[in-house]
Amino acid sequence: MSHDERALRELHTVWIDAVNAGDLALLQTLMADDAVFLNPGKAPLGRAEFAVGFSAAHQQAEIHCVSDLEEVAILGEAAYTLCRDSLSVTPRAGGAARDLAGHRITIYRRQPDGRWLLARDANTLLPLTAPFGLR
Amino acid sequence: MSHDERALRELHTVWIDAVNAGDLALLQTLMADDAVFLNPGKAPLGRAEFAVGFSAAHQQAEIHCVSDLEEVAILGEAAYTLCRDSLSVTPRAGGAARDLAGHRITIYRRQPDGRWLLARDANTLLPLTAPFGLR
Repeated sequence: MSHDERALRELHTVWIDAVNAGDLALLQTLMADDAVFLNPGKAPLGRAEFAVGFSAAHQQAEIHCVSDLEEVAILGEAAYTLCRDSLSVTPRAGGAARDLAGHRITIYRRQPDGRWLLARDANTLLPLTAPFGLR
Repeated sequence: MSHDERALRELHTVWIDAVNAGDLALLQTLMADDAVFLNPGKAPLGRAEFAVGFSAAHQQAEIHCVSDLEEVAILGEAAYTLCRDSLSVTPRAGGAARDLAGHRITIYRRQPDGRWLLARDANTLLPLTAPFGLR
């Protein structure tokens, strides 16, 4: 396994752990200033909108994400990963957890110092109970 | 505009035109053998599954896609685009059209001959009427 692949696999693990810990400050060190996140049925989120949404989500619910990294590809100064995510969202005010599942493609850019930063991310997560026929 | 950016913009236009024309054979010349497509609420589609789904969709409905290319980024041997798509699906058997909207990130790989091929694609398209609170 190359040094870059190891670094990207580690970055993926650190990212998911930070998501589960609600550690926005850590996530922000792992994403580019111009990062963009795509979610089904939402307008694209930039860095600032991601922060607002992430904080609100963690205030309202306990979030647990399990992510299986299915592919890591390094293409020179860019890299991408493809992973399969399961998300459990348990309201802090009580009530049933909502389970979502889907996949995610993430694009990373290599920095001048050799680090990788998340640049673009698109996920296809939907509630398992999504009541229309896309499945 | 660089030669590569022009080529990728042209490729995006040709792709959408082929989607609207139901031209699977053309699409297949524009994607890598190992291409993967992510759609909300579905398992990832490889080249063969894409072909089956595309053909079935065009048999059942008239499909019209409008796609605004919002970003083209070239990172050495890889490139990605981000676009905003609107899709109208009109059943051939009659009945109301279903409208979907969302965004799409596409990753391309440069071939030895300089051409670009679609390698990975993730879209966040949902029906505008999706009846749960993701919006």
